[in-house]
Amino acid sequence: MSKKDKKMVEEITSMSEDFAQWYTDIIKKAQLVEYSGVRGCMVIQPYGYAIWENIQKTLDAKFKELGHENVYMPMFIPESLLQREKDHVEGFAPEVAWVTHGGSEELSERLCVRPTSETLFCEHYSNVIHSYRDLPKLYNQWCSVVRWEKTTRPFLRTAEFLWQEGHTAHATEEEAQEETIRMLNVYADFCENVLAIPVIKGRKTDKEKFAGANATYTIESMMHDGKALQSGTSHNFGDGFAKAFGIQYTDVNNELKYVHQTSWGVSTRIIGAIIMVHGDDAGLKLPPKIAPVQVAIIPVAQHKEGVLDKANELKERLSKKFRVKLDDSDKSPGWKFSEYEMRGVPLRLEIGPKDIEKNQAVLVSRVTREKTFVSLDNIEEEVEKMLENIHNQMYDAALKSREEKTSTAKTYDEFKQIVSEKGGFIKAMWCGDVKCEEKIKEDTTATSRCMPFEQESVSDKCVCCGKPAKTLVYWGKAY
Amino acid sequence: MSKKDKKMVEEITSMSEDFAQWYTDIIKKAQLVEYSGVRGCMVIQPYGYAIWENIQKTLDAKFKELGHENVYMPMFIPESLLQREKDHVEGFAPEVAWVTHGGSEELSERLCVRPTSETLFCEHYSNVIHSYRDLPKLYNQWCSVVRWEKTTRPFLRTAEFLWQEGHTAHATEEEAQEETIRMLNVYADFCENVLAIPVIKGRKTDKEKFAGANATYTIESMMHDGKALQSGTSHNFGDGFAKAFGIQYTDVNNELKYVHQTSWGVSTRIIGAIIMVHGDDAGLKLPPKIAPVQVAIIPVAQHKEGVLDKANELKERLSKKFRVKLDDSDKSPGWKFSEYEMRGVPLRLEIGPKDIEKNQAVLVSRVTREKTFVSLDNIEEEVEKMLENIHNQMYDAALKSREEKTSTAKTYDEFKQIVSEKGGFIKAMWCGDVKCEEKIKEDTTATSRCMPFEQESVSDKCVCCGKPAKTLVYWGKAY
Repeated sequence: MSKKDKKMVEEITSMSEDFAQWYTDIIKKAQLVEYSGVRGCMVIQPYGYAIWENIQKTLDAKFKELGHENVYMPMFIPESLLQREKDHVEGFAPEVAWVTHGGSEELSERLCVRPTSETLFCEHYSNVIHSYRDLPKLYNQWCSVVRWEKTTRPFLRTAEFLWQEGHTAHATEEEAQEETIRMLNVYADFCENVLAIPVIKGRKTDKEKFAGANATYTIESMMHDGKALQSGTSHNFGDGFAKAFGIQYTDVNNELKYVHQTSWGVSTRIIGAIIMVHGDDAGLKLPPKIAPVQVAIIPVAQHKEGVLDKANELKERLSKKFRVKLDDSDKSPGWKFSEYEMRGVPLRLEIGPKDIEKNQAVLVSRVTREKTFVSLDNIEEEVEKMLENIHNQMYDAALKSREEKTSTAKTYDEFKQIVSEKGGFIKAMWCGDVKCEEKIKEDTTATSRCMPFEQESVSDKCVCCGKPAKTLVYWGKAY
Repeated sequence: MSKKDKKMVEEITSMSEDFAQWYTDIIKKAQLVEYSGVRGCMVIQPYGYAIWENIQKTLDAKFKELGHENVYMPMFIPESLLQREKDHVEGFAPEVAWVTHGGSEELSERLCVRPTSETLFCEHYSNVIHSYRDLPKLYNQWCSVVRWEKTTRPFLRTAEFLWQEGHTAHATEEEAQEETIRMLNVYADFCENVLAIPVIKGRKTDKEKFAGANATYTIESMMHDGKALQSGTSHNFGDGFAKAFGIQYTDVNNELKYVHQTSWGVSTRIIGAIIMVHGDDAGLKLPPKIAPVQVAIIPVAQHKEGVLDKANELKERLSKKFRVKLDDSDKSPGWKFSEYEMRGVPLRLEIGPKDIEKNQAVLVSRVTREKTFVSLDNIEEEVEKMLENIHNQMYDAALKSREEKTSTAKTYDEFKQIVSEKGGFIKAMWCGDVKCEEKIKEDTTATSRCMPFEQESVSDKCVCCGKPAKTLVYWGKAY
């Protein structure tokens, strides 16, 4: 075993000991990301990028099915364009990277590297939207954006990250609102049915909404360490941007109207959620539908006649339906077992001389670690069934974990105690006053995650000030 | 007809009248690109981006088939990192965009927006390559890059453009050279078999090679106006970057060696080639394999009973195998015919009441404009056959056009006359001295496009200085 191999199977710091170190160890050892010499920027390695590609493929197909078209906007925004919408520039200007020189010449106007592209889409829409026949415009873009964050962590918070940003323009307020909720539901379904991550759907408070939006909707998920992660957002802009950018159309009655707009996005952050919702002390645990390798074939006693032939034959058969990797390197089967476990491969297939004799293979689930002996005759069906089970088991485990980490608080003392001792989501009533939100954040560092669509009344008083409650809010510390 | 519709069917400037205006008209009217308010940057609209997505899909599958993996590197390069390889920084520093501020703070070191990512890949490789077992590294990245060009034209030369950049590291010189040529051939096959663009494969002279490369190989194609376009390049870096960045590995004998590297790229420029190789005075002509819409179904007398039903039925049938658009808008069939012709859709399918009676449809080729009546029973096969024919006809026409635009010059007078009167490729001998290259460029603005792999001797003297010739070179004005 080479020095590097040894390093690979070293223990990962246990979650309970140091969750942040556990996260860093996994990212490094599963070769998802390597740190770069560029402040706050990451190198996304093949295994990490393949997860992103699978996420892209699934979401992109769904966007297109719903009539969205992909475009590409410039990566730069002139300072004057960024300033066009007042709230928007206030929200983003403090954290953008500024280009001031092209070659050796100083630019007459600074350009920022896009932190998000509302302003560019709006400028474009003002050029191409004229009549009701040009609506709706349902555009999306896959790109990287830059936000000059002070402290960074791979996937969770980086100066540059990859994402998609949908930007749509509609004739009416109702259509824009429908689109906003439709796309939030696309994200929620994607998290639950593809990533096996249960989410809470809700609306952000005014304090937490996107700079320039009328309303921001969010899906919130719960990590192993009791912190929440905002996993996707969908914004309804009303006609605010349209007025700032002059995006008007003539309707059927030849009247000039402003469009109503939305935007929505999911980023590489979601890979952080996958790690922190599903992983364990043995490493990553990848949802089958986006795992770059769904089945790792490990030959046992591979030097014996016929073993590698059979392993290759199985690889060929299974590759027709699944993403398969055969590891016929000279490392020991034991090393390979823990390697692919650490890398989160959902299913391991072992095949050795005795198995071949019996026309069987051994399937080992990353989730239950149970060995199942299956006949080679219908191995495709067995693999399919097990991958489906693994997805469901992962979802159920994540839901159970979230439920265990969800508490209800009626009094502020209770609230503070839960934040400091247990963490997780806290369901508590709110009066609607931003002052209470600010006080809670100051006292506990917990923030309002969302006003969930599924409202219930756990008390009739605001958990902070005791005044009459308006809304149930999910609170929690968050990434 | 609305004002916008009228605008759409306006005549496109004819090629012979003003080629540059013809190009601009097509881009604008086919809605490939819209100008943005950002200097030198373009908005790639859905139709233009869909072409790029089809290019990406095809190339990406080929790269992966050959064992390449996708990654993502930061978009910024610290100034000190860019300076690590002497020739490289000299080549690129004059044309990069510099980020000097993050938020309101001045950075301690300037960052350039990547003009190309050799330095980032090298830094990463120096971190992750240790042993011969880590080789080869076959990485690729899809991203946008920025070069601060003075004058810009959509697709051909823009401050920001999209591309892929492959970066590989190998144990030996031979393997690196094999990879360099392998990828050049991938590009050439792609141009010829997918884009229907014939190319000349060859090597760049030292003057024209990539900054930092030992050797640059290129594929060159010929536009309608007699100018050449470099359509893809593949570089062999030898161990120059490896030495500058300290990328070493221990070989099987435990000896420390430098890796040998390559890089290769194709960009959105290639869409400019598609337009200028295939287009005509009626508009775009898209190669079937990457056309966003391969078949445009136009119902005739669509208000008559059964027409739209049949059109929809055909759409559903054909969509299983092809990219199909049914236009059932209230515009006239005549308007639609010229619209889809202008947008370069390879095949138009007309279906009206009489056709339905006869169980037939009319297929009209964008290339020959011939009408073919085909039975609905086997419409899939007919469409497939016709798309294949269209590809071949486009390739043949492009090859014929290139041949007509290729001349041979034995004397410098001949050479100069051809450049000024006819343009196109000029095959002429060269002594190998950069001074002759420089003189030719100064006298004629033609540059050496490549030293073709298929060498022949058209004379024994350098076309410029008359000294003994070493190599046949393709010369020409270029985009």
